[in-house]
Amino acid sequence: MIVLGVDTAIRKTGYGVIDLQPGGSFKILDCGIIRNGPSLPHSECLRRLSGGIRELVSSFHPDAASLETAFVSRNIRTAMILSLARGSVIAALAEMGVPAFEYSPKTAKRAATGNGEADKSQVASVLAAWGRLDIAEIPNDATDALALALCHASLAVRPDGACRIPKPI
Amino acid sequence: MIVLGVDTAIRKTGYGVIDLQPGGSFKILDCGIIRNGPSLPHSECLRRLSGGIRELVSSFHPDAASLETAFVSRNIRTAMILSLARGSVIAALAEMGVPAFEYSPKTAKRAATGNGEADKSQVASVLAAWGRLDIAEIPNDATDALALALCHASLAVRPDGACRIPKPI
Repeated sequence: MIVLGVDTAIRKTGYGVIDLQPGGSFKILDCGIIRNGPSLPHSECLRRLSGGIRELVSSFHPDAASLETAFVSRNIRTAMILSLARGSVIAALAEMGVPAFEYSPKTAKRAATGNGEADKSQVASVLAAWGRLDIAEIPNDATDALALALCHASLAVRPDGACRIPKPI
Repeated sequence: MIVLGVDTAIRKTGYGVIDLQPGGSFKILDCGIIRNGPSLPHSECLRRLSGGIRELVSSFHPDAASLETAFVSRNIRTAMILSLARGSVIAALAEMGVPAFEYSPKTAKRAATGNGEADKSQVASVLAAWGRLDIAEIPNDATDALALALCHASLAVRPDGACRIPKPI
């Protein structure tokens, strides 16, 4: 099962594509960051974001996408800008026929590492070991996306008692 | 000058396309609503919204799009859902190479009718008379979108002292 994890933000969106094999092992097929420089207007950020997601879907044909739940920031402007970015990502996934699911960061980290409070370097260590990749090849900002992808894939293959697959977005 | 006005919402997005002629008269080329039923998941609403915007751009080749400024709702969840919809619309416009501008409802109504506090029926009356259209052909939910389109077109052709064209989004 191939899952695309996306840790969305307007300026720096982490992504990770994993392939979970029937035995429970998985391979990291790709991971990286879609960067939008600070001087780019929002419209151009959103265009690059949706274009980047479409390219990833065309390259890897994921069965599903896994996103972080929209956090309700205390700063309403920050939350609205994040939602703009999420809107362009979710629309691109829907156009490509990829169902999107969302998980809290805690749920994703627990599924990936067994510890919902793990920091980025701990998540990266576990993912690199389990996914047979040199840890240096995992950019810091892609660890959350990989954890999201692994979370959905794991739950799809073997739901646990505490957490099941949510409805698609 | 052809302008597409979009009054964005996740369930009911009004749109209006106007053609402002050099003499200052204008024609309403199209207006209507992109409806998303209450049972549709957000991903499907966003797909239909970005697809609808792309179709309008393909049909009318607007020089610009005019959107309502993101209002900062007291309800953060409402604001975030509206921003999801805006993200899919702005991304679709950017992909099609249409620059998008935003105006407050007050600015749009003042530009269209001379009165920033005009209600929908007053806006519709002015638009129908000026745009040579039977008022019955203007759906209630498309009046704000038409006012937005006319606002941008008027300012592009003849900036007034109080309001100039803003930077694109």
